[in-house]
Amino acid sequence: MKRYTVGIDFGSLSGRAVLMNADTGAVLASSVCEYAHAVMSESLPSGRSLERHTALQHPADYLEALQQTVREVCAKAKISPNEIVALGFDFTACTMLSLDAQGMPLCFSEEFRDEPHAYVKLWKDHAAQTEADEINRLAEERGEAWLSIYGGKVSSEWMLPKILKICKEAPKVFDATQRFSEAADWIYQLLTGVEIHSVPFAGYKNLWNAKHGYPNAEFYEVLHPKLKNLIGTKVSETVTPITDRSGKLTKRGSELTGLCEGIAVSVPVLDSHASMPTLGLTNEGALMLILGTSACHVLNSSGEMEIEGICGYVYEGAVPKLYTYEAGQACCGDHFAWFVKNGVPRAYAEEAERLGISIHAYLRQKAKCLKAGESGLLALDWFNGNRSVLSDSDLTGMILGMTLRTKPEEIYRALIEATAYGTKMIVQTFEKSGIAIDRIVASGGIAEKDEMLMQIYADVLNRPIKVSKANYSGAMGSAMYAAVAAEIYEDISQASNVLAVENGITYFPMQENVIVYERLYEEYTTLHDYFGKGKNTVMKHLTAIAKGK
Amino acid sequence: MKRYTVGIDFGSLSGRAVLMNADTGAVLASSVCEYAHAVMSESLPSGRSLERHTALQHPADYLEALQQTVREVCAKAKISPNEIVALGFDFTACTMLSLDAQGMPLCFSEEFRDEPHAYVKLWKDHAAQTEADEINRLAEERGEAWLSIYGGKVSSEWMLPKILKICKEAPKVFDATQRFSEAADWIYQLLTGVEIHSVPFAGYKNLWNAKHGYPNAEFYEVLHPKLKNLIGTKVSETVTPITDRSGKLTKRGSELTGLCEGIAVSVPVLDSHASMPTLGLTNEGALMLILGTSACHVLNSSGEMEIEGICGYVYEGAVPKLYTYEAGQACCGDHFAWFVKNGVPRAYAEEAERLGISIHAYLRQKAKCLKAGESGLLALDWFNGNRSVLSDSDLTGMILGMTLRTKPEEIYRALIEATAYGTKMIVQTFEKSGIAIDRIVASGGIAEKDEMLMQIYADVLNRPIKVSKANYSGAMGSAMYAAVAAEIYEDISQASNVLAVENGITYFPMQENVIVYERLYEEYTTLHDYFGKGKNTVMKHLTAIAKGK
Repeated sequence: MKRYTVGIDFGSLSGRAVLMNADTGAVLASSVCEYAHAVMSESLPSGRSLERHTALQHPADYLEALQQTVREVCAKAKISPNEIVALGFDFTACTMLSLDAQGMPLCFSEEFRDEPHAYVKLWKDHAAQTEADEINRLAEERGEAWLSIYGGKVSSEWMLPKILKICKEAPKVFDATQRFSEAADWIYQLLTGVEIHSVPFAGYKNLWNAKHGYPNAEFYEVLHPKLKNLIGTKVSETVTPITDRSGKLTKRGSELTGLCEGIAVSVPVLDSHASMPTLGLTNEGALMLILGTSACHVLNSSGEMEIEGICGYVYEGAVPKLYTYEAGQACCGDHFAWFVKNGVPRAYAEEAERLGISIHAYLRQKAKCLKAGESGLLALDWFNGNRSVLSDSDLTGMILGMTLRTKPEEIYRALIEATAYGTKMIVQTFEKSGIAIDRIVASGGIAEKDEMLMQIYADVLNRPIKVSKANYSGAMGSAMYAAVAAEIYEDISQASNVLAVENGITYFPMQENVIVYERLYEEYTTLHDYFGKGKNTVMKHLTAIAKGK
Repeated sequence: MKRYTVGIDFGSLSGRAVLMNADTGAVLASSVCEYAHAVMSESLPSGRSLERHTALQHPADYLEALQQTVREVCAKAKISPNEIVALGFDFTACTMLSLDAQGMPLCFSEEFRDEPHAYVKLWKDHAAQTEADEINRLAEERGEAWLSIYGGKVSSEWMLPKILKICKEAPKVFDATQRFSEAADWIYQLLTGVEIHSVPFAGYKNLWNAKHGYPNAEFYEVLHPKLKNLIGTKVSETVTPITDRSGKLTKRGSELTGLCEGIAVSVPVLDSHASMPTLGLTNEGALMLILGTSACHVLNSSGEMEIEGICGYVYEGAVPKLYTYEAGQACCGDHFAWFVKNGVPRAYAEEAERLGISIHAYLRQKAKCLKAGESGLLALDWFNGNRSVLSDSDLTGMILGMTLRTKPEEIYRALIEATAYGTKMIVQTFEKSGIAIDRIVASGGIAEKDEMLMQIYADVLNRPIKVSKANYSGAMGSAMYAAVAAEIYEDISQASNVLAVENGITYFPMQENVIVYERLYEEYTTLHDYFGKGKNTVMKHLTAIAKGK
């Protein structure tokens, strides 16, 4: 009898599911459900306007994705739910919400539906930078040992700054919250009836680690008296490893998904890690580059190193017996999408329409005719702050070198180049710390679609970059974790060995471009350090002025 | 009998003429002729593409403007040419061309019509920055006394760098040139048959001054052996004061304009100075701010001071017995026009169309709802290089502070604010040098049309700014110079006392904005000095890379 699993990848704008043959890795069907509320950054559904840097989601959208996509992949593949032996999923993080005593989101209640703090705070919500700064100051003062695990800085994207902000600004929400939970853990609980705080989410996003556990209660208390007993009351103290195989689909989970009660549900992993087994990267030395709305850089190593400015590392955060290091860029595709929405003139939009291609495709067509350096432009890729290696979401974007002859496609290309320089900065930081990178494999929507961008990345990094052939690599990885949960494989590495997808095209650096990009990267580095390392704090001053401070 | 004069203002994109009652100042008619070739910055009419930073014009466009506008104002005003007693005009500068032995532009000939160097090099042609750098280096090495008159730097916009570039890159054009001439002087010669190099053009744009004359021949020779005898051969050595009243319209001039042979033609002045008498600013202490495609800052003083980074000062450059100081910004309206052409998305263009207003008006509507500092953006107004106070056309634009929420109207406003900061830098430089400014009067298309911009200028400068009511203030000033040439007035000050137009609206600074803009200006100053004064020469490196160097 054939055995199938379903994997769901909960991304920033949609949930994507695949149905996989768990013995061959063949994907029989896929389904995408766009979130109806997408990302709320300007107002709530009620029209209530949101603070700068806010990015909320509506938890009902996740339920809709769960209900729709699982049924759809079964229907499309003509596979009976009886043949599905396990369900797995991955999620963005830290994407957190406040739950009531019944485990339901506060924003579902009449009392809190007009309260921004009661909604899901998406990973890219950066409104808690002040709180992150406060946490970093305190942790440094107290010489907290765990700080170095996170490259020396807690990000405003993580759970504690977000909770601290709720505690200070929305005491009613804070008091009414039974549990602050990652959306991933909440979905797991809906499906299995078991409350967890899974290792990758606790480890990368909530300051827990295998050796020391959480920061001690005193630290939380000094931060805010009401946070003294945060861990153990409003945040689950128990942390569940990804190897845990105890989760089974409940009746309620069965009603939600249409799958059979009692099948295995794997412990969720980070969406940025879920592609690893799909790409066959569960071993040491390979850098996985995921290029989507933001960018992630994931690397396994058997050694433990403290690296400045990386997002963190977790032992068995994704793969048994290895440390998984993660770095990231807070915007990649978002960056280009901003430009297409806000910076492309009518004539270009009309010409793209006439040609029957997207504006992105039209801009690429024009931008790929440019030589490296020809535009005279240089940008900083900080439109959504900087995650690695500066970990500062108050940093902002910059474009330099414009003249009256500057064209939209030149700016578009400069924005792409900026993300490539940001990636190079991360790769160099890993290598300086002694973690060898022997190959780079890229995945994600942008890697698959944008050949010009991939060539620029290869030229800037001066390394060959393979691009995975896999569509839905995140959802496929989750289907593989599901196969492990169903005990078809010993562990995820074994599953990956059998099920991984072959790599597709490889982009090789072109020497004439490499030379130019080395010069431009030098200029980028100077500006990166000038604006990012405290020599000129203009970006922070402007943000303060914009906030009326 | 009533006495009328005609004044023509040759601007960057059109010639504008007025017909004025020379006793009352009443303007009876006006006429505008847009230049058919506008500014050629990408290609010649033949399709031949142009070097970066090039800005050429076609001299035939000036003749067309001369022919059309003078006839049109007479026709519109129903005034017979017999009643016109004098003609005056002003011109952009240094806007130069190469003339053959017959005094005709080389680009009119079959041999040179496909040769970029044979066309008019418009003031804003910045392709000769390398040559300007060379001239500056040499002048500094030799301790040339005249350098300090120009704020310590020769601009790439001026005549000598442009000639040096022709000499080096187009020896055939150089050799075939009988005279290098300002377009203004060429037009005067066409009208009167008399060759001149008028004081303001020689003084501000070609290194001549009343005390020392031109730089000596040795300087020219060291610069390039072929330039040894430049002055006196290919450049007229005789310099004509603006008070000269000997020019009379010849038969040929009469055919060109339709006016009567023998009437007075005034010696041309700079277009940036022509508005002074119109605005009643021929006395000390008033700063005239002309806001057009670029911006000019003109100030009369009885004292002689050397001021860092101003464009220059000339004794009797515009008004008898006074020094006229000039500073400028190399782009103002051009800056906003670039944005509207290249950076405004389709949805905005369509909404403006639906509302039946221009895109500028639509952006202003949105931008004026923003508070000072609210956008978190800061820009450098160097899209066309920097004239004052850095005098460096290799500098380029910068915008900083973008996030994924940044809107087009925020960028538009930031570009406007940047030009206001640039103006404040100039005003402060004048004042630091001991030249008092007791009032500011603005003129030019942008000052008249853009209330939001004027309010921002008043807020940034923290001073009241009057805006002249006069339309065509440049052409009106030229009509006043014509009235002096016709001996209706003793001198331009007397003419201005009688004929000047009353000021219109005054913009007063709003204190809440002043406070914010003081903080933003401090940030601007830091970036201005960082990028502009050699601490980070990234803009020059990028320009070099773009040029393939």
